[in-house]
Amino acid sequence: MKKIAVLGSTGSIGTMTLDVVRRNPGKFRVAALAAGRNIDLLNQQVREFRPGLVSVMSDQLRRQLLGSFSGRGTEFLSGDEGLLRVATAEEADVVVAAVTGSAGLLPVKAAIEAHKEIALANKEAMVMGGQFLTGLARDNNVRIIPIDSEHSAIFQCLAGNRYADVSSLILTASGGPFIDFSPEEMKHITVERALAHPVWNMGAKVSIDSATMMNKGLEVIEARWLFDISPARIEVVVHRQSIVHSLVRYHDGSILGQLGRPDMRIPILYALTYPERWPLDLPQLDLCEVGHLTFEQPDYVRFPCLKYAFEALKSGGSAPIILNRADEVAVTAFLDKRVTFTDIPIIIQQTLDQEATGSVSSFSDIMEFDARAKQTAEHFVAMTG
Amino acid sequence: MKKIAVLGSTGSIGTMTLDVVRRNPGKFRVAALAAGRNIDLLNQQVREFRPGLVSVMSDQLRRQLLGSFSGRGTEFLSGDEGLLRVATAEEADVVVAAVTGSAGLLPVKAAIEAHKEIALANKEAMVMGGQFLTGLARDNNVRIIPIDSEHSAIFQCLAGNRYADVSSLILTASGGPFIDFSPEEMKHITVERALAHPVWNMGAKVSIDSATMMNKGLEVIEARWLFDISPARIEVVVHRQSIVHSLVRYHDGSILGQLGRPDMRIPILYALTYPERWPLDLPQLDLCEVGHLTFEQPDYVRFPCLKYAFEALKSGGSAPIILNRADEVAVTAFLDKRVTFTDIPIIIQQTLDQEATGSVSSFSDIMEFDARAKQTAEHFVAMTG
Repeated sequence: MKKIAVLGSTGSIGTMTLDVVRRNPGKFRVAALAAGRNIDLLNQQVREFRPGLVSVMSDQLRRQLLGSFSGRGTEFLSGDEGLLRVATAEEADVVVAAVTGSAGLLPVKAAIEAHKEIALANKEAMVMGGQFLTGLARDNNVRIIPIDSEHSAIFQCLAGNRYADVSSLILTASGGPFIDFSPEEMKHITVERALAHPVWNMGAKVSIDSATMMNKGLEVIEARWLFDISPARIEVVVHRQSIVHSLVRYHDGSILGQLGRPDMRIPILYALTYPERWPLDLPQLDLCEVGHLTFEQPDYVRFPCLKYAFEALKSGGSAPIILNRADEVAVTAFLDKRVTFTDIPIIIQQTLDQEATGSVSSFSDIMEFDARAKQTAEHFVAMTG
Repeated sequence: MKKIAVLGSTGSIGTMTLDVVRRNPGKFRVAALAAGRNIDLLNQQVREFRPGLVSVMSDQLRRQLLGSFSGRGTEFLSGDEGLLRVATAEEADVVVAAVTGSAGLLPVKAAIEAHKEIALANKEAMVMGGQFLTGLARDNNVRIIPIDSEHSAIFQCLAGNRYADVSSLILTASGGPFIDFSPEEMKHITVERALAHPVWNMGAKVSIDSATMMNKGLEVIEARWLFDISPARIEVVVHRQSIVHSLVRYHDGSILGQLGRPDMRIPILYALTYPERWPLDLPQLDLCEVGHLTFEQPDYVRFPCLKYAFEALKSGGSAPIILNRADEVAVTAFLDKRVTFTDIPIIIQQTLDQEATGSVSSFSDIMEFDARAKQTAEHFVAMTG
């Protein structure tokens, strides 16, 4: 029986994780859940999975939730403290890190220090602190298995091979809903339009990042740390069908790729069962029905976020932290309709230009660069709006 | 230093194997070579690679060859005896089995019994004696690594995974040069046209088998034994670009595929270096340049050979042996212009109908069924011509 804690249980990855648990009765135990504000859904989850530990964003929400569960053996917590308690829940073997954004960093760090295996969906944690988290994981002999479909694909394509034989990683990108938009059309993209991703069902932040292709940029940075590979050896190709989730190129000329229907339950279950694979009763991918798979170069002019991500990685130091936070601020402002879609890359670039890149030698450095980038990005949002 | 013996050194796989050796100076030693009639090329190979043991088809050819090499530390042999000596050459660690057709069976058997690792390109050996060869390999703790691009792809996609988690193997087929021919057009296919395969550079027998899709049928049978999987769990999809060399479907919904330029040196080197991969200085596969990959169902009506192969596998016992030999006889007759292209499946079906399927319990049973199928198939060729 695998005992899991889920950080971000009411989000897209969180609910799919619990669906995977539901589909494997008797094989998983949900030890702890942490969510934000969606206490209606959390309420249902607690009733169904009976975790020992639950945390929500605020004490007010905690008290709301508490009423209906008193005396049933579940401890209710709140805030950053509660989130960290869930991330280090004694009962859990594996922590599914599915909090969105930079809020995931410290809980992942704490989970590693508590020797929990990490099933990682929170790419921002790796973007901000990749070097430190992977170092910490090595020191604590903790395995980080990615849940992101691209990184899971790469992880799967590396199994049974030597890292030394890898030539490059090939991340595929759907290109998002605006792949064929002209620069002029891009100026008029609405929030509603941007949230309607054609293939994957996912949260708002990820949907917008997918539309700007910053999502792929963050994944490039995540891959750099997760697989300890130089940025020059990470390729991005646009693959509109989202069937080939990513590939690994080896120096003998062979390329391994992982394919599947775009369903996050596949990488989630893989992360929870690796090195085994457990059966998942989903419709099978029929290659003949798909018919054709296409591959094309990304357009770094219409999608500058992807370019900025490669540049930030090349600059190193605090640049990825600044990029990540500037994106988070800009996307939030777009979702709040304070800036336009094409303002997003501009705000990111302005923030990167304004904030001098510095070296990062600790988690507190990360938090400091992050806080400063937030201020600066918010300043540029205010200037723009 | 890997010491290799090559059976069929002047053929397509044989010459590419030696090219792989040439591209890795100091890493391989060619211990022994066996060829058929092409003594000009063999002559060059012996001068370049200085094997300790060489065998040719006949004593006459042996004497021709011997003249130019006397006293240089190479032993020259001939005939079946010579081929077996090369297959069991004391100096060799690995035997590259690249003889075409059923002639490869006994040398592969002998090599396994002599505890040589097998790099297998001779699919007919596995089609005829798969059950026995894989059993023998298990008993002798000998590894058989496929060189066929499809089986190498599957082997690569299985690495790092458990056989128990496999749902099916997906063999890709280029469909051959006549994939879009109407039944009427197929009647007029010439030998010259059939030998001009658009993608792979290969021998005459394999080219014709590729054109009739019997090649894929034989590969299905080979896969059945090589990977110990039931025929119902082997899928065939037509993939015209020959970029995805085959795939493995797992029961979690994940599919792993191996891609690469259609160059046999990639699977040859992999078979010789597994579980490592050595660098191979060939042009890289550019997915964006390829642009698109297509997948479609095979047409079992226009390509009945593929259907016959699945049926023979289902019948079991001697059926695959009969199918294999009937194909070999029919293809030879086509190459000799004694029968037409569309006669090939007819002769195979006639032979399968005529020869009662029996159980096979030894290598001598295999040889007996094979000899009888040859006679029967030749009878039907004579009736047809």
